[in-house]
Amino acid sequence: MALIVQKYGGTSVGSIERIKRVAARVIELCKRGDKLVVVLSAMAGQTDALIELSKEIVDTPDPRELDVLMSTGEQVSVSLFAIAVKSLGYDCCSILGFQAGIQTDQIYGKARIRKIDSNRVLTELNDNRVVAVAGFQGVDENGNITTLGRGGSDTTAVALAAALNADVCEIYTDVEGVFSADPNICSHARKIAKISHEEMLELASLGAKVLDIRSVEFAKKFNVPIHVRSSFTQNEGTMVVAEDKEMEKVMVSGVVYDKNQARVTITKVPDRPGIAFRIFDPVFEAGIVVDMIIQNTSVEGLTDLTFTVTRTDFQQTLKLVGDVAKDIEAEEVFGDQEIAKVSIVGVGMRNHAGVASLMFKTLAKENINISMISTSEIKISCVIEEKYTELAVRALHDAFGLSDEGKTE
Amino acid sequence: MALIVQKYGGTSVGSIERIKRVAARVIELCKRGDKLVVVLSAMAGQTDALIELSKEIVDTPDPRELDVLMSTGEQVSVSLFAIAVKSLGYDCCSILGFQAGIQTDQIYGKARIRKIDSNRVLTELNDNRVVAVAGFQGVDENGNITTLGRGGSDTTAVALAAALNADVCEIYTDVEGVFSADPNICSHARKIAKISHEEMLELASLGAKVLDIRSVEFAKKFNVPIHVRSSFTQNEGTMVVAEDKEMEKVMVSGVVYDKNQARVTITKVPDRPGIAFRIFDPVFEAGIVVDMIIQNTSVEGLTDLTFTVTRTDFQQTLKLVGDVAKDIEAEEVFGDQEIAKVSIVGVGMRNHAGVASLMFKTLAKENINISMISTSEIKISCVIEEKYTELAVRALHDAFGLSDEGKTE
Repeated sequence: MALIVQKYGGTSVGSIERIKRVAARVIELCKRGDKLVVVLSAMAGQTDALIELSKEIVDTPDPRELDVLMSTGEQVSVSLFAIAVKSLGYDCCSILGFQAGIQTDQIYGKARIRKIDSNRVLTELNDNRVVAVAGFQGVDENGNITTLGRGGSDTTAVALAAALNADVCEIYTDVEGVFSADPNICSHARKIAKISHEEMLELASLGAKVLDIRSVEFAKKFNVPIHVRSSFTQNEGTMVVAEDKEMEKVMVSGVVYDKNQARVTITKVPDRPGIAFRIFDPVFEAGIVVDMIIQNTSVEGLTDLTFTVTRTDFQQTLKLVGDVAKDIEAEEVFGDQEIAKVSIVGVGMRNHAGVASLMFKTLAKENINISMISTSEIKISCVIEEKYTELAVRALHDAFGLSDEGKTE
Repeated sequence: MALIVQKYGGTSVGSIERIKRVAARVIELCKRGDKLVVVLSAMAGQTDALIELSKEIVDTPDPRELDVLMSTGEQVSVSLFAIAVKSLGYDCCSILGFQAGIQTDQIYGKARIRKIDSNRVLTELNDNRVVAVAGFQGVDENGNITTLGRGGSDTTAVALAAALNADVCEIYTDVEGVFSADPNICSHARKIAKISHEEMLELASLGAKVLDIRSVEFAKKFNVPIHVRSSFTQNEGTMVVAEDKEMEKVMVSGVVYDKNQARVTITKVPDRPGIAFRIFDPVFEAGIVVDMIIQNTSVEGLTDLTFTVTRTDFQQTLKLVGDVAKDIEAEEVFGDQEIAKVSIVGVGMRNHAGVASLMFKTLAKENINISMISTSEIKISCVIEEKYTELAVRALHDAFGLSDEGKTE
């Protein structure tokens, strides 16, 4: 008997037929004697439809009210799911964010979970009910509804698993697990059987979309094992777990890319103390995340500064930095959106020399120019021209022996 | 400056355009300096659409979960409304049942309000916000979502008006107010300017659909003045208020009919003590409301018993009473659905003799046979054949001088 937290995404509950199928799947586990907490997203398309509706009123709807509106999506899913489970003769109870004691901060639209009072969920579990929890939503300390942002249901599931000390948190999605590269551009990509929280965190932050990064942070912090798997098959997916000895032998676990990247350059910046703060402060103030930063060696007291942001933030960044450039009398500001970031991730890097040089050599062999580099203990990222993205991913995947054929687990 | 509770029904908020129109209407009052609590129903058709969705899973969905599902309808309305008000530059805040402190019993689908903790609403009002409250919903003492049943938003509005000690509760609907008869069948029907809570209670219970009966009970109990009016015009509607001297002069306020009526007869019932209990107990146990009861004079220890129920409950009642009839060895049970109840209502009846006889005489003149009669201090109801309903309403309306021409206010 195990306590299992499961999360099903919008595609998995995208129709009444699919909701019934998820209900049947959950009941199979109940028969085995397991206790089930099932976190659901809104039915596919619902959240977007609600946002569209609000935009018929005004372009930028009030964030508090948008959260009240959007949270109905998950409320519909959990009630329909509970109706389905009960109709099959098993007891089930839907629980919304405010009932599940999911307390967040007050940042509407991208709230963070502060704590979970799991008493209500535990009571229902002890009464032998399947507990269907609405994902993506919580309440602030004043009882206002908040939502956790895109991918928030993953975070709900992992946070609940941590609070309940569940045996495993199963994240059901429309792919079979975490792959060594995007199977759409790398046909030899291999499903990874086991990966560490740290590696998953890097993969998620570098562009892998299978798991929301905040959910992995939670899992790492509270040591929650995550099983990423498909709701359309019974196959084992990928286990995301605390690092163990065996993993260290694997040099590189995966290759990942991110096209949502843009670069901003300021030329001839007077190189004096406090100048970086002057430039970046308005950008940070606007909530824009700056990824890589390169500062050229100063020539005659002037330097060039290049950094990357997401394309979503590109135009706003250009404007903000343009204003500063005038103030500090820099030469000019220009940008480039046709770039991509390609990264390799693996805990084994720590113990293997030459990983970076193999990466650079591989890209050079394909005539791909590297314009920026950033590294951490377990990842190396290179900014390249966007058009080389797929080529780079395939070349690196081969070079590090990640293909099905190139590697045994 | 007044504290006004308004309620807009599903038709009034049936589209984004209409929601914006309601927002503009509310803001006009804000400009006047009034404080506004606005109770909204689900957008027209939404509640039915949600019920349909659940019935794709199972014919009789779990009542608790159906309430969770249905309550999303009002949640969508209030958030969109708040977005609309805020987009026009006025502060507004949506409040759901659980946030508004609307505590109910645990009868899912037709819960009754037990108490209201209006602190949250008061706080928002004091912060100069328009407060948009989701109608129709509450929470039980364990925080489970409940709904109040059809017409429940009226009750939410009146109960809030009572709790907040509001100056008036305005119920916006798609008609101009309460009429002396249904304008669809009686072209001379007159809009009633002022009516007592007691009369409105009788009208609502006898078939007038303009106000939910529970909302009138609340209004009477807590002496809340209700203004029933149209959201499509600025015209004054009908004030429903505590009885005053002037009203007593009006003999009859309105004629009302109800076709949702059926009659059940049991013949040759052995007339012994406890027999009525034997017959009606299973009917009451099933939650069926019995309206009129007639027991004929006993002949040779046997009597006939006739009573009315709604048509909705007719088949079930026939079955229940059929079973009892066998047990107590009555002769037979039969029913009739082609009946209607026509009633006249007015506080003035108390002081006017001859109201009943004028009613009987009027119906007789039209050759309409009366099969059952029931009276209270301020109403007389007659059961007649259904096909005479419209004729009876028009004749009574004329006889009691209720037409526009026949009467000055």
